[in-house]
Amino acid sequence: MPTLFSALKASALPSWQAYTQHEFVRQLGDGSLPGEHFIHYLKQDYVFLVHFSRAWALAAVKTDRIDEMRHAAATVNALVNHEMRLHVETCAARGVSEAQLNATEEAPENMAYTRFVIDAGLRGDLLDLLVALSPCVMGYGEIGARLAAEAGMALDDHAYGSWIATYSGAEYKEVCVNAEALLDTVAHRLIGLDHRASPRFGDLSRTFKQACELEAGFWSMGLRGA
Amino acid sequence: MPTLFSALKASALPSWQAYTQHEFVRQLGDGSLPGEHFIHYLKQDYVFLVHFSRAWALAAVKTDRIDEMRHAAATVNALVNHEMRLHVETCAARGVSEAQLNATEEAPENMAYTRFVIDAGLRGDLLDLLVALSPCVMGYGEIGARLAAEAGMALDDHAYGSWIATYSGAEYKEVCVNAEALLDTVAHRLIGLDHRASPRFGDLSRTFKQACELEAGFWSMGLRGA
Amino acid sequence: MPTLFSALKASALPSWQAYTQHEFVRQLGDGSLPGEHFIHYLKQDYVFLVHFSRAWALAAVKTDRIDEMRHAAATVNALVNHEMRLHVETCAARGVSEAQLNATEEAPENMAYTRFVIDAGLRGDLLDLLVALSPCVMGYGEIGARLAAEAGMALDDHAYGSWIATYSGAEYKEVCVNAEALLDTVAHRLIGLDHRASPRFGDLSRTFKQACELEAGFWSMGLRGA
Amino acid sequence: MPTLFSALKASALPSWQAYTQHEFVRQLGDGSLPGEHFIHYLKQDYVFLVHFSRAWALAAVKTDRIDEMRHAAATVNALVNHEMRLHVETCAARGVSEAQLNATEEAPENMAYTRFVIDAGLRGDLLDLLVALSPCVMGYGEIGARLAAEAGMALDDHAYGSWIATYSGAEYKEVCVNAEALLDTVAHRLIGLDHRASPRFGDLSRTFKQACELEAGFWSMGLRGA
Repeated sequence: MPTLFSALKASALPSWQAYTQHEFVRQLGDGSLPGEHFIHYLKQDYVFLVHFSRAWALAAVKTDRIDEMRHAAATVNALVNHEMRLHVETCAARGVSEAQLNATEEAPENMAYTRFVIDAGLRGDLLDLLVALSPCVMGYGEIGARLAAEAGMALDDHAYGSWIATYSGAEYKEVCVNAEALLDTVAHRLIGLDHRASPRFGDLSRTFKQACELEAGFWSMGLRGA
Repeated sequence: MPTLFSALKASALPSWQAYTQHEFVRQLGDGSLPGEHFIHYLKQDYVFLVHFSRAWALAAVKTDRIDEMRHAAATVNALVNHEMRLHVETCAARGVSEAQLNATEEAPENMAYTRFVIDAGLRGDLLDLLVALSPCVMGYGEIGARLAAEAGMALDDHAYGSWIATYSGAEYKEVCVNAEALLDTVAHRLIGLDHRASPRFGDLSRTFKQACELEAGFWSMGLRGA
Repeated sequence: MPTLFSALKASALPSWQAYTQHEFVRQLGDGSLPGEHFIHYLKQDYVFLVHFSRAWALAAVKTDRIDEMRHAAATVNALVNHEMRLHVETCAARGVSEAQLNATEEAPENMAYTRFVIDAGLRGDLLDLLVALSPCVMGYGEIGARLAAEAGMALDDHAYGSWIATYSGAEYKEVCVNAEALLDTVAHRLIGLDHRASPRFGDLSRTFKQACELEAGFWSMGLRGA
Repeated sequence: MPTLFSALKASALPSWQAYTQHEFVRQLGDGSLPGEHFIHYLKQDYVFLVHFSRAWALAAVKTDRIDEMRHAAATVNALVNHEMRLHVETCAARGVSEAQLNATEEAPENMAYTRFVIDAGLRGDLLDLLVALSPCVMGYGEIGARLAAEAGMALDDHAYGSWIATYSGAEYKEVCVNAEALLDTVAHRLIGLDHRASPRFGDLSRTFKQACELEAGFWSMGLRGA
């Protein structure tokens, strides 16, 4: 039986590809992305992480299973107490201060995705929320792995080598493996093992597709620049 | 195929009976309930209706199906713009002013049930919320019908005849028929037609059982008096 | 003391004007808006109304004051049980069936605004939610009044005369008067009478400004067409 | 200027005392509490921690201030990934297995408090939520300190010495200091520095009082036994 994530991806493949193979990603991969566009992306991504963390916190609200709570709680904690600090350092290295990050005006494409995810969680149950979150978590892993493979050994000299190294690294791979497993655990107790046979599969697939399209919109915003 | 409500009731019958055949109900039915206990119940029921209406409003938040929204919206509107006004009149007739109603200190048993329902909706999806709401809606209908049958033609002289008439009347019967149908519509799209085969049936039954027990706790609070 | 709405509008005037004096509005007003763009707008507006109604339902969840609940409940009920039926008729008259309306793919600019509003309500309190809702409610009133004044007596022959008549009419004026009053009632109990002296005024103004910008984005989506 | 917590405690002192000086606490302090009542309490407290953690996760949903998110996220993580594991060990040492803990039927007094807190957060803003959480966090600190002072050096031989040591220890003191500071930070940005002058003080005090009473109900449930 394929994982729920595989089934969702297969059901919305064009949207998945439009997101993971977006022009922004291509330029990130070959290093041709203008530096100021990357900085624009980093600033927006900082605001994104705030609301993405809120969405993961909502996941902990939406379960009473201790193992699921542990996963969600550890994710929120890692995001706000570690990843966001790293993000601040990365930005500082590129001349963007924490004060500038906090003063970033959130772009509409940024709001659209995170608020859609949070509302998916408010409107539905934990599975709806995790499905809406999954394109971000899993997509970055797929993108990181592909860009790393394309760049070969040359990450040290790559303009965006550090970004690629992060999302192709062992630590992020584990994040993806665990997120895929959590999705299956939650799916198991809410829709059973035969995902496509569930009356909810159509809605879940639609949520997944919309989330991919909103992610693609985020890349387009990055490409357009500030 | 039985309705989801029937399946839930069958799965938690002792709790359902402890609620619908509670001593408070028996005394209400034979008219032996002391008047001050009834007034205590009416005051608490007023506060109950505030949070019960909030729970039905949450149902409208938790769907994007227009028919489901219409049902929930009409219910909230009927509750706050009609039923609660009637409640105020009933209390006024018994010497309890609207100011006294609004000053009622909510009993813990009262809080326990309504907040449990609202949290079931926040934590889960629309089906979890409706299942938590259903013992109240459907139980009053079953109680009303039974007490009316027991009282026979003598409702006019019955101390609580007006209460019994309300919950045994055609209008309230229609509320119950519609609520049972809404539950099945929502169950159909979220767990399919074979309710007991759903991996969620155990959790739904537990929610239903807890809600019955909290309703029984509400009656015990009424019986104990202020 | 000015109303909270006036204070917010004054604090975010450029964003308010960019929304209420948008090119889409200008073309709607002089009748030059291409018919297919109007139909695109109507379809998106139908999906908008679904989530806008959910946001008003959330307002009823977020209070225990019976008068505030009554206002919110009546609004949701009017939206889903009356306005959306009218919307279906308007669309039918222009050759768009209810099935087509329900099959509309929600544009990202559409999602961005409604989900932002709902999240403002989840994250904050009733005042945050109402402030995020207010540009839509009040802006349509201001736009309707201005376009009606500009069109003079010629609404019957105007391509969009019915739209303008709706939002400049006495009924919609009352909606706006009541919404402005509700905002002040809620502000009174949550931040007091001197709105600008509240430590929350900066955040409320930011929410208001973002909502105006997301509304302007909605018009831009309408102008771009399907 | 006193802290918000001091102001709330002063405004609801009889309820605060009924909670912190409850008969259950007295028996815990002098060691006279029957062992099976303590075990009953421990089981219910385990279920309590599940929903208490969900409430803290909701706090992270209800802010976009990174420092506030960090506090809430660290608290949830500490609760589910550390404190609940300790709780499992404590119970195991008293012959209660993790399976038994997970099978505990949640008492109504238990539900009443945690669901009240979560609903305070859904209905209001972050301040409403933190105020509802504060009697639990701060009350255990005050109780722990008092019982430790009363027990003197004799904690090693005390039947409940380990419980008293936990809640009188330096680590828990720091939890309380930080929670009191978070409450003031959030109050500062939402109601300003003069807490009692805020139009919300009455509502906040009522929430605090209700939370104290529900905590007292939890002790009564513990005293009554299974």
